[in-house]
Amino acid sequence: MMSVVPEPDLPTNLACLKPVDALLRCPVCFDYTNIAMMTKCSHNFCSLCIRKFLSYKPQCPVCNSTATESDLRNNRILDDLVKSFKDARHKLTQTTFESPPISPKT
Amino acid sequence: MMSVVPEPDLPTNLACLKPVDALLRCPVCFDYTNIAMMTKCSHNFCSLCIRKFLSYKPQCPVCNSTATESDLRNNRILDDLVKSFKDARHKLTQTTFESPPISPKT
Ligand SMILES: [Zn+2]
Ligand SMILES: [Zn+2]
Ligand SMILES: [Zn+2]
Ligand SMILES: [Zn+2]
Repeated sequence: MMSVVPEPDLPTNLACLKPVDALLRCPVCFDYTNIAMMTKCSHNFCSLCIRKFLSYKPQCPVCNSTATESDLRNNRILDDLVKSFKDARHKLTQTTFESPPISPKT
Repeated sequence: MMSVVPEPDLPTNLACLKPVDALLRCPVCFDYTNIAMMTKCSHNFCSLCIRKFLSYKPQCPVCNSTATESDLRNNRILDDLVKSFKDARHKLTQTTFESPPISPKT
C-alpha cells in the first residue's frame, strides 16, 4: 500500500528559492497552479479555481477587477515552469537530505 | 571604473534548475524576458522583441499563429519570476563558489 508523503519544505540552504515557489502557487488554493489561466488583469489561477470563483462572482479574486470566463487565457509557460520547478526541487531536496525519510510510527 | 561581468553558468550541482532558467528566456533574444507580453497562442516575449517582430510580420515567432499588437497581454507573473529567479540564482552561485572571481589579465 502506498502512503501519501507530504512535500517537504525547501531545505534551509535553498530558502532563496521560496519566492519562486510562492509565485508558482494559485492564490485561491495555495497549491501549485494547475492548468494556469490568466485574467485580463494579469492574475493567474488554476483553471478549476478561477472558473468556480467566476461562476459565483464576475471579478478577479486578487484585485477585484471585472473578469469573465471568456476573457481567460491559458498561461502555458506557467504550467511548464511548475513542472520544471517541481522536478528541480525534488532533485535538490534529495541531494541535500542524504538521510532516508523518517518512518511513521506503527 | 566598473567592468561588466557576464553572468556565470549555473554551477554543476544546480544544473537541475536549467530547464527553469530556459523557460524564463525570450525566444527572440535569448536573454531573460523583459516586460513579458503573451500572445493569444500563449507564447511569451520581451515587449520590445515582439513589437519589433509584429511590425514586420503579423504572426507569432514561435508557432506562426496570426498575432497582432492589440492581442498582446502583459504576463506580469513572468516578470516577477525572472526577478526572483535571478535573485535566487545569484545567491546560490555565491554559496557554491566560495572562491573570489578570477581577475582579468591586465
Ligand atoms: Zn488553485
Ligand atoms: Zn486581477
Ligand atoms: Zn527578447
Ligand atoms: Zn505562438
